[in-house]
Amino acid sequence: MVEEKENIQFELTNELIEQVQQLIVENNDKELRALMLDFHHADIAEILDELDLEEAVYIIKLLDSETTSDILMELDEDIRENVLKNLSSKEIAEEIEELDTDDAADMIAELPEDRQEDVISQIEDQEHKAEIQELLAYDEDTAGGLMAKELVKVYETWTVAGCMRRIRGQAKDVTRVHSIYVVDKEDKLIGRLSLKDLITAKSEQKIADIAKDNVDFVNVNEDAEEVAKVMQKYDLEAIPVVDDNQILLGRITIDDIVDVIKEEAEKDYQLAAGITQDVEADDSIVQLTRARLPWLFLGLVGGVGAFLIMEGFQGVFEKYAELFFFTPLIAAMAGNVGVQSSAIIVQGLANDDVKGSVNKRLIKEMFLAALNGVILALFLFLFVWIYKNDMQTALAISASLVAVIIVAGLIGTFIPLFLDKRGIDPAIATGPFITTSNDIFGILIYFWIAKLILNI
Amino acid sequence: MVEEKENIQFELTNELIEQVQQLIVENNDKELRALMLDFHHADIAEILDELDLEEAVYIIKLLDSETTSDILMELDEDIRENVLKNLSSKEIAEEIEELDTDDAADMIAELPEDRQEDVISQIEDQEHKAEIQELLAYDEDTAGGLMAKELVKVYETWTVAGCMRRIRGQAKDVTRVHSIYVVDKEDKLIGRLSLKDLITAKSEQKIADIAKDNVDFVNVNEDAEEVAKVMQKYDLEAIPVVDDNQILLGRITIDDIVDVIKEEAEKDYQLAAGITQDVEADDSIVQLTRARLPWLFLGLVGGVGAFLIMEGFQGVFEKYAELFFFTPLIAAMAGNVGVQSSAIIVQGLANDDVKGSVNKRLIKEMFLAALNGVILALFLFLFVWIYKNDMQTALAISASLVAVIIVAGLIGTFIPLFLDKRGIDPAIATGPFITTSNDIFGILIYFWIAKLILNI
Repeated sequence: MVEEKENIQFELTNELIEQVQQLIVENNDKELRALMLDFHHADIAEILDELDLEEAVYIIKLLDSETTSDILMELDEDIRENVLKNLSSKEIAEEIEELDTDDAADMIAELPEDRQEDVISQIEDQEHKAEIQELLAYDEDTAGGLMAKELVKVYETWTVAGCMRRIRGQAKDVTRVHSIYVVDKEDKLIGRLSLKDLITAKSEQKIADIAKDNVDFVNVNEDAEEVAKVMQKYDLEAIPVVDDNQILLGRITIDDIVDVIKEEAEKDYQLAAGITQDVEADDSIVQLTRARLPWLFLGLVGGVGAFLIMEGFQGVFEKYAELFFFTPLIAAMAGNVGVQSSAIIVQGLANDDVKGSVNKRLIKEMFLAALNGVILALFLFLFVWIYKNDMQTALAISASLVAVIIVAGLIGTFIPLFLDKRGIDPAIATGPFITTSNDIFGILIYFWIAKLILNI
Repeated sequence: MVEEKENIQFELTNELIEQVQQLIVENNDKELRALMLDFHHADIAEILDELDLEEAVYIIKLLDSETTSDILMELDEDIRENVLKNLSSKEIAEEIEELDTDDAADMIAELPEDRQEDVISQIEDQEHKAEIQELLAYDEDTAGGLMAKELVKVYETWTVAGCMRRIRGQAKDVTRVHSIYVVDKEDKLIGRLSLKDLITAKSEQKIADIAKDNVDFVNVNEDAEEVAKVMQKYDLEAIPVVDDNQILLGRITIDDIVDVIKEEAEKDYQLAAGITQDVEADDSIVQLTRARLPWLFLGLVGGVGAFLIMEGFQGVFEKYAELFFFTPLIAAMAGNVGVQSSAIIVQGLANDDVKGSVNKRLIKEMFLAALNGVILALFLFLFVWIYKNDMQTALAISASLVAVIIVAGLIGTFIPLFLDKRGIDPAIATGPFITTSNDIFGILIYFWIAKLILNI
């Protein structure tokens, strides 16, 4: 492989941050502006994320709103909130004027309710204002909440030449023209065209003749995750959004869907780790505690349950102390197996891969857990037998382990499937929820079976 | 909210599967072909995923390669492998002819090595063949492994009118024209254009005058994850790929990046659940065992460690039996806290959010864990005190819990940061690895502190 050449990627260095801070201290606006304009707006946002609030506000006020509106959208949410607090409603309205309708609506929605009205009333472009107000009415987790009003729309009765002329006008407002949407005279979506189709067509052809009528679309009330699935499955880079009467309302682009996919994956990951969604490493201790404590409390309750079970078997300690010393092992195995099987089911459900009957899944997991359990129990048996020279205890502990692993696997498989059938997000069953219930069931089953085998 | 109208999304029903199977049994090729052509190729792939292998092969052989090549790319990987086994090298080469170079190279790479040469030699289009062979040389986790050779390229010296003429030719081979790449006479990338820029420019203008020169690009050896980050950060829908001499080699589109992002998220999720990457719910019991057993074995070793620690404290059971009954609680809390803190760090590292010094992170986690620990310990103290009426034991157990939680949080924060600095994927530290080490440390610290307080 050849030596790698440096690529274009921006690197945020301490020197750069210090240089920026120095220019702010010196009020050297000219040089600061020149420095900033060398960077992409996403890079400037990275710099601002590292500055103090006053410094960030200084730069936002220094640059013009065409640049700063894009920077603001790239900022960390908490920092954006604080920066906006330091801008007047008029200044925010100016930023909003520069943004596409979807970003504009998102930025307004983040403002405190009493400021929203004030900012909206100061937007000068009346069409932009009306479109933003329309978008604000949709739930953020629906197609309506994701879509932008910017799109290129043509009527089926136009000719290619006439269409090209008019598109030159519309396209100026649209950052990326993915598809040209074809509508009838009532604005109902009836087909689509690519720019490529248009430039490769003859100029006297009618749009109706060259449009593709198999256009994918989503209803404005469709769930955002569902939109993400449709766009991924059909490899779409943009999808038009219609109302119940098939009237074209807006379009969703793939970059917004990438965000939905990432957020969904992060949410599932955090739930599996016992964190209520939407915290980051840089959040405050109070925010992090609020996200983590409830799950830990659940673990505490489970631990008290395990305590009560063990206390009930206290009498056999004298003769079978090993039983007690292996409870952390039993609990750990029950927890690990439960997390493994639930994670596989949750991921399969997210990808629509889990089909067929629940019973078949459970039977498969039973065999799988039994196979894993027997292999692990064999090692445990040998350890206890050799270490304690007591084959009966070794047998009791290992046999119990197999039973515990099978039950843990079944619980881990059943609970997410059950939750999913009930319309509850199965991802909540992957973390402390499953480990805690498996700890308790595991320890109970373990003592119960060991007692049977040892004839206590 | 208005009543939701049915959207276009395809639904896979048992009736449909049975209908397809019936048509195959009847050898009713005409009706089967007509039925299939109603569906999108991604939908047909979903149907094939549910059929027996012979049935799937029947349909692939029935339809023409223009449709089946797309269907094959959408199939589940295991099923595609089996279907391809049932096709001749000549038939596979025909499918390859229809695919874009990136998909073609991926499909060939999946074949057994001895078949690869045979299939390649049967590709008739010599240019397509050479491009595929070029792509096969790149590592699949690099920009070269993701890129396609299909793109629209223009020379800076052309005029807009001349450019439009030539693009009409090139664009026929390119499914989606995201950007037009501008090169100099040595094929070095020097800028880009959008189709929109082209159709809104005057026909006599020179390409050099209207091209944007701030074109993002990646080196062909760049890591795939790095490409994904760049494309997300700068909101790109396609990025050109160049070699070390800036020669334009290919382009990567956002749909391939969506796959990279999803795979990355799934890998981290599975590691956090104690599953070696790349298994699905539908994989065989042997495959699933291979992915799960190593992590369970780690848990078993940890459990044996906990056993040895508890055995060492055996002597105090008579007087302080509660200490032993709370070990599952201690182990569970240590495990949960460790998983929470490591997951937050791993996610932060994946998003490039974790900046600043390791010490500052550890101090923050210490305060966070102490806060959580004290709240939880308070509940535990009250429970033990009231239930056992023994304040000293209650105090010993709760104080130990606080210490265990702080240490668990620190370990969970430190290990992924340490692995990351060493260039090891920190995600391996989120699952059984962290719970197992925290179980052992937790129980050791717990008995040690309780012993100190109780003066045993």
